[in-house]
Amino acid sequence: MIVAGVMSGTSADGINVALARLRGRGFATEFKLLAHYEFPYPPAVRRAILELMNAEEASVARLSRLNFLLGELYADAVFRARQRARVTLELVGCHGQTIYHQGEREPFLGSKVAATWQTGEAAVIAARVRAPVVSDFRPADIAAGGKGAPLVPFLDYVLYRDSRAGRIAQNLGGIGNLTAIPAGASANDVLAFDTGPGNMVIDALCERLIHRSYDRNGTIAQRGNVLPEILKLALEHPFFSRKPPKTAGREEFGRDFVADFIKACGRARHEDIIATATQLTARSIGIAVRRFVLGMASAARSHSHPSQKTGERVGHPTLAKVGHPTSASVGDRCAYTEYIVSGGGTRNPTLMRLIRDELKPLGLRVRLSDEFGVPSEAKEALAFAVLAYESWHQRPSNIPSATGARRPAILGKISYA
Amino acid sequence: MIVAGVMSGTSADGINVALARLRGRGFATEFKLLAHYEFPYPPAVRRAILELMNAEEASVARLSRLNFLLGELYADAVFRARQRARVTLELVGCHGQTIYHQGEREPFLGSKVAATWQTGEAAVIAARVRAPVVSDFRPADIAAGGKGAPLVPFLDYVLYRDSRAGRIAQNLGGIGNLTAIPAGASANDVLAFDTGPGNMVIDALCERLIHRSYDRNGTIAQRGNVLPEILKLALEHPFFSRKPPKTAGREEFGRDFVADFIKACGRARHEDIIATATQLTARSIGIAVRRFVLGMASAARSHSHPSQKTGERVGHPTLAKVGHPTSASVGDRCAYTEYIVSGGGTRNPTLMRLIRDELKPLGLRVRLSDEFGVPSEAKEALAFAVLAYESWHQRPSNIPSATGARRPAILGKISYA
Repeated sequence: MIVAGVMSGTSADGINVALARLRGRGFATEFKLLAHYEFPYPPAVRRAILELMNAEEASVARLSRLNFLLGELYADAVFRARQRARVTLELVGCHGQTIYHQGEREPFLGSKVAATWQTGEAAVIAARVRAPVVSDFRPADIAAGGKGAPLVPFLDYVLYRDSRAGRIAQNLGGIGNLTAIPAGASANDVLAFDTGPGNMVIDALCERLIHRSYDRNGTIAQRGNVLPEILKLALEHPFFSRKPPKTAGREEFGRDFVADFIKACGRARHEDIIATATQLTARSIGIAVRRFVLGMASAARSHSHPSQKTGERVGHPTLAKVGHPTSASVGDRCAYTEYIVSGGGTRNPTLMRLIRDELKPLGLRVRLSDEFGVPSEAKEALAFAVLAYESWHQRPSNIPSATGARRPAILGKISYA
Repeated sequence: MIVAGVMSGTSADGINVALARLRGRGFATEFKLLAHYEFPYPPAVRRAILELMNAEEASVARLSRLNFLLGELYADAVFRARQRARVTLELVGCHGQTIYHQGEREPFLGSKVAATWQTGEAAVIAARVRAPVVSDFRPADIAAGGKGAPLVPFLDYVLYRDSRAGRIAQNLGGIGNLTAIPAGASANDVLAFDTGPGNMVIDALCERLIHRSYDRNGTIAQRGNVLPEILKLALEHPFFSRKPPKTAGREEFGRDFVADFIKACGRARHEDIIATATQLTARSIGIAVRRFVLGMASAARSHSHPSQKTGERVGHPTLAKVGHPTSASVGDRCAYTEYIVSGGGTRNPTLMRLIRDELKPLGLRVRLSDEFGVPSEAKEALAFAVLAYESWHQRPSNIPSATGARRPAILGKISYA
């Protein structure tokens, strides 16, 4: 089956389309990536998305129209990708553009709800592309008691599980997130969570301070010096000490965080501020790996899974049994030997160097997903092709140990052409 | 197949659930209505919905949470309906709560888009009810070039088509809408459009002027006298002279319209104001039937279908050919003999009397949908059970001549349990 995966991340740069030939099923799904393209959003659309994502209040009409406009843009992107690659599409999986995400249940009108919102009308894509579309992947996981994220661990497990090597897959998008797969792990043993900002804070600072959309090749951070007081302060954000599973977004590291960050930096040099944000991403990854994957330092907390507390995951092995060691068994961390990175952040050599510096002492070799046949920028789009393929065949594809869901769920909604 | 249809209309009173046994396919679908229930919204939820529907600006977090909360409430309603009726459900069709509807394409960020937005998360319903759910019916029609409304004509055609009698089906919800089915008509001959306010303006005036949610039994209007100047002014709203297909909503007859209406009434008595609004609904129906169904008065405009102008409906018979007479053939109007009403407005005897007064001179006998086996309040919910049944079997169910779509479309998105 030839499937297109369509992704547009929190940085709202544009639309990634991956075309893949898929066969098999579940974790035994095999794929061949046929092509991958990136189409930037028109500037006015990008501005509108960023504005709405950061807004407390937004125009109902604009939100509604944006859904349909993005549907058109996604359809165009798939159309162009299909034409360039000269393939006949049988299915599209479209993540959509996240407008809001709140993985935790909070009080609302006398009830308690979690919520997630991806926009980009699938009916428009299906009508233009003349193929069925799976969209809106996250709500089904939330309905199953999960946080609706992360969903990429399914592909990570398909790609990286290994009988002998424990591997950590890291994505560096707007937000950073990792998937830890112990050697010989079953899907229930997978741990996944957001590590904090990926490129989001760096990009926002570039925009605000020097009117560039990102730190190309990491040259600005390369010239700067980290401001240790600012770094320390930023790392005090409660997100970093919160136990996984956990998700982050613009709610945590968006406009407000960046405004505070700039304010705290006072009259520091721009390159120092950007260097500090780059180190923040690297350091927060180092902390997350040490604390929550390898179980070092405050490790006693690292595997107190909320759904285990409530006793709802009866029948699932607990994480402690299967490879996320407690502080009492730190020696087991040797089981993790590889750290495999994907996402736009891989194109920032300064960030990559800082991450290597963080992880080398932990015995982790830093690799790129490209070495596993998945170009760094294609991985998330490919993930939604694979998830769509599973949903189309009515098979679940959330990883409950990653999202905190009580059970597997068939993700997404199907729109027919 | 046992299917639940779930509807909550623009008046946001609550949730209607119809349970039906369905068999057959397309226009030959047969149904048996098993039960029908109405569950009021919790007052805080109703207030939040009305507030968001009328808002220019709204909180992104609230909109996102409302989607999930309504999913829970819809699930509860289906759950309770199923328990009371003691049936095993195989499918749910849920319309959702309309937050925004713009059937016409308008400029937006360098493109032109129409838009529609129904909220109430289907993934939550599917998870709680453990049955697949079809939701979000309108976008596929918009993607096919239609206005996304009205969709009930599919059921009207299934129910009311007759080889000898021309029939008009009228729904009196928040908005009034009619479906005209000439004697012996094919589905392409069906004309459908919104007539203007149903109960929406009456209800809003009751709320604003006398703090009641509606004019129970029409007693207030019964006591009042119509204010002819105000009625004339209100009928000058451009919606009433616009040619079908056309749709109305809170954008046309919501808060702003009501505020202007009250202002124009000055110091008139409350019962006169409410009597005038009741006459407005009845008169606007009379005008719509005369002008756009029977082709009287300014009839030359009544069938200039926009998509016919663009020549896009090649292969479809034109309306003029098949039973919507031009002014040159007014005599044909005798073909219409019945006017069949459903919706909450049927419980307002004053409104019903005024409508009868409008239609009797046109040779139309006013009947209730109840006589055709569909209780007035159950009809819209039943319609979404029938539409879901069609979509589940991957069959289209929009009526292009009603919505203005260029082609039939499979409506809705499927969420698996």
